Amino acid sequence: MFMLHGRLAAKPGKREELLAILAEGEHREPMPGCRLYLVAVDETDADGVWITELWESEDAHTASLQLDRVKEQITRAMPILDTEGFKRQQLEARAGIPD
Amino acid sequence: MFMLHGRLAAKPGKREELLAILAEGEHREPMPGCRLYLVAVDETDADGVWITELWESEDAHTASLQLDRVKEQITRAMPILDTEGFKRQQLEARAGIPD
Repeated sequence: MFMLHGRLAAKPGKREELLAILAEGEHREPMPGCRLYLVAVDETDADGVWITELWESEDAHTASLQLDRVKEQITRAMPILDTEGFKRQQLEARAGIPD
Repeated sequence: MFMLHGRLAAKPGKREELLAILAEGEHREPMPGCRLYLVAVDETDADGVWITELWESEDAHTASLQLDRVKEQITRAMPILDTEGFKRQQLEARAGIPD
């Protein structure tokens, strides 16, 4: 199953604001095809936010970026992001996938 | 919540065997305090197996290493592991945690 583990970076001092935007999804309907959308921090990395995502297909992930609520979140996050600090590891999950 | 994202390395040609051992947990009772134990591969990394784990506490993770079935798995995996290739990122999950 299509999996991503990546780093988003906030501008200095803006990480809590970015975390709040990313956590909004918890209280909404799940995105179609999304099995996991985990938001984490690393105490050795002051400006990073680590996202671990599982999608039923790569297409489901691509399609999610066109959802109105996701586009609106991206628009709000953009001014506080340091896009040069992004990293992305693409994986294929083999076991332990949540229902 | 206590989270780990790390790389285990198999000796050359032994990755599928390692994946089979790691996937055994899917058919067993969940480990106490474990919310996620995801096993994945990265197509750019021929010998690596990537494990993403979520635990209700660091202590729950430590305790899991003393479970008989886990000790038995480690014993079986040891001959096919390349322990010098291990990596580990410790994280604190903030949102999106599975029940």
